[in-house]
Amino acid sequence: MTLRIGVAGLGTVGAGVLRLLQENAAVVTARAGRPIAVTAVSARDRKRDRGVALAGLRWLDDPVALATDPDVDVVVELIGGSEGPARDLAEAALAHGRPVVTANKALIAVHGAALAQMAEATDTPLAFEAAVAGGIPVIKALREGLAANRISRIAGILNGTCNYILTAIHEHKQEFADVLAEAQALGYAEADPSFDIDGIDAAHKLAILAAIAFGRPVAFDAVYVEGIRNVSGLDVAFAEELGYRIKLLGTARRMGGGIEARVHPCLVPRTAPIARVDGVFNAVVAEGDFVGRVMLEGRGAGAGPTASAVVADLIDIARGRFTPVWGSGQATLTDLPDVPIAQHVGPYYLRLMVVDRPGVIADVAAALRDYSISLGSLLQHGRSPGEAVPVVLVTHDTQEAAMRAALARIATLDAVLEPPALIRIEPG
Amino acid sequence: MTLRIGVAGLGTVGAGVLRLLQENAAVVTARAGRPIAVTAVSARDRKRDRGVALAGLRWLDDPVALATDPDVDVVVELIGGSEGPARDLAEAALAHGRPVVTANKALIAVHGAALAQMAEATDTPLAFEAAVAGGIPVIKALREGLAANRISRIAGILNGTCNYILTAIHEHKQEFADVLAEAQALGYAEADPSFDIDGIDAAHKLAILAAIAFGRPVAFDAVYVEGIRNVSGLDVAFAEELGYRIKLLGTARRMGGGIEARVHPCLVPRTAPIARVDGVFNAVVAEGDFVGRVMLEGRGAGAGPTASAVVADLIDIARGRFTPVWGSGQATLTDLPDVPIAQHVGPYYLRLMVVDRPGVIADVAAALRDYSISLGSLLQHGRSPGEAVPVVLVTHDTQEAAMRAALARIATLDAVLEPPALIRIEPG
Repeated sequence: MTLRIGVAGLGTVGAGVLRLLQENAAVVTARAGRPIAVTAVSARDRKRDRGVALAGLRWLDDPVALATDPDVDVVVELIGGSEGPARDLAEAALAHGRPVVTANKALIAVHGAALAQMAEATDTPLAFEAAVAGGIPVIKALREGLAANRISRIAGILNGTCNYILTAIHEHKQEFADVLAEAQALGYAEADPSFDIDGIDAAHKLAILAAIAFGRPVAFDAVYVEGIRNVSGLDVAFAEELGYRIKLLGTARRMGGGIEARVHPCLVPRTAPIARVDGVFNAVVAEGDFVGRVMLEGRGAGAGPTASAVVADLIDIARGRFTPVWGSGQATLTDLPDVPIAQHVGPYYLRLMVVDRPGVIADVAAALRDYSISLGSLLQHGRSPGEAVPVVLVTHDTQEAAMRAALARIATLDAVLEPPALIRIEPG
Repeated sequence: MTLRIGVAGLGTVGAGVLRLLQENAAVVTARAGRPIAVTAVSARDRKRDRGVALAGLRWLDDPVALATDPDVDVVVELIGGSEGPARDLAEAALAHGRPVVTANKALIAVHGAALAQMAEATDTPLAFEAAVAGGIPVIKALREGLAANRISRIAGILNGTCNYILTAIHEHKQEFADVLAEAQALGYAEADPSFDIDGIDAAHKLAILAAIAFGRPVAFDAVYVEGIRNVSGLDVAFAEELGYRIKLLGTARRMGGGIEARVHPCLVPRTAPIARVDGVFNAVVAEGDFVGRVMLEGRGAGAGPTASAVVADLIDIARGRFTPVWGSGQATLTDLPDVPIAQHVGPYYLRLMVVDRPGVIADVAAALRDYSISLGSLLQHGRSPGEAVPVVLVTHDTQEAAMRAALARIATLDAVLEPPALIRIEPG
């Protein structure tokens, strides 16, 4: 009757799952219809104090052994990483017909297509609510709650570290490098922060959301990625003046006959609900043909929220609630092509540092005109004849390829002193 | 293989459900794992143009006959109202072991406890995602997505008409009566608006959410209700000055050994995410012990969003995904007592119209002191000796019973010219 769990990986999330199952045993049992109990664990260090009772648990040296252990019904993979023991364990468990619950976005983003095929072939649940947006039940909302809709677009703040940094640049008028150093000191950013700030983590999550929203196998390589290293205080201030906030969004949308998926800094109108999601919070917006726009917001990381999502998946399994990995079976998945970033169409924010002298704006405007790019507004404050001044231009809808070509021309102008800053504008 | 649906009630929502099942047949079939098709309908007027194809449908005069019709697998009840044919149909279908999907908040709020018992006794799904917050999958999020948590509090903007009116009072500096008349002209408010503006509709929805959040049978009668008729432009302006927005919230929380559930206008800090949910949008905040605070936001009414929720329930049934009505079985439900409004504790906003003369504030302050009510701030603008002026007081945490007693005393003061305006303050 008890659903017996084997947990691989006892970091903060693993310890959180154990603590939740202990502290909330009564409510979990009621909602699952039967007890859920951890019976076996596998982690490197047996001695470390994890702040949670480990007595009575069997301890396996090899995490992959959980896939076939006779006293385990469901494997919870919390090792992390797209390769190595995490992948080996998931594959072994699915091959054995044993349900897998994981918080591992890299694994699902990179190997999810193959894992989903294995899961369907062996009729085995593969669940990963915790892989995207932590405790926010966004996978369930998209895959079940909005299942009646054709989704046209999803957009999300999917990385709390980046959102914390961008919020701090906005609020404290600091520069990226200083805020990052502070975030590292406070533990909000890793010592090696590139996974977060270069957008890889957000791209993993976006790839998973796009697969579910559009009913096609996950395609991480198709996601265009830019991180936030080049977001300057100057651009954040100009964005504010223009009525926008700068956010790192993961966006996927139906475009023509395909799907575009991209992670990059965006200008978002200050009035858009997602523009106000600050600090370490995550949010996901989904637009469906019948439901309209729905937004979910909450904590995207941390032991508690992640454990909440892992155990929600376990409760689904305990109740026998089953949903195919990408929302519908393999035979019904689409093979909509990827739309490359060069075909992206939208408005752009462009900031140049130019020498303040007559004719410079005319040269820039001529370059844009030659690529049929139409200007919405232009901002230049004060005058400093002969000195470097920032000039901000906002375009109407423009194709990325044209924008890039115009930018290459503009960058060759004598009066343009630095590489231009180009930031896409999103509706939020 | 096809899931055969009988629809009772073909108003805008019923027509929306038919249209969704026709237009999105491919995606619904893929996500449901099999086709979902309407085979029979029952509505009063067979001739009205509903903008949707009705050819080939069997038409039943008696909606209750759908409960036993041999060509129907699931009954969709969209008649509305807590009594009459809606109730008769739901009871007959559940007694017959036939799943029921409904958008009827009144029915679930008033008779949900008995219907849930019937559903469990006959092991039959009873689903009502569309009854609360329209297309936002808040029932699913709370009952499944956050199932691992002990919920301490839920709060929601649950009535789009009220939120539209309060937003307009705020934005256009108008008074309630004028905004209501406009909303009626625009079709955002009913000719008889009392169900919405007196808070009954929001209370139905809150009762349902509270039952799921706290795992106890729905108890509509236990909800304390105040509507928005007495919200004045003056109070909205003072709230703004103090850093708040006025919203009609439905709030339920664990308090001591019980549950308090109440619908009334609230001052909510401007910085709280729910304070920025404007116009006809709905939102629900849930606070769980592991997940923290999660907010869901979207369209709470209309044919499209409601149809989205109804069909999501049908897809769950088609897939065999089952969840007990209140999230866990009858045997595990709690019987936590209701906490009456007199025991509510929180800060209060109090606005008096007083004669501007020495000693008035002292008399008011003395009344508050005598009931051990501690003042956080006091606002009085300008001076008009001998004239009526508004005075605003904000208290620290206070028990409602003490507040009411103090208010009764204050109302007897000579210098107090109108019944005081008392609005509770919520964290959002």
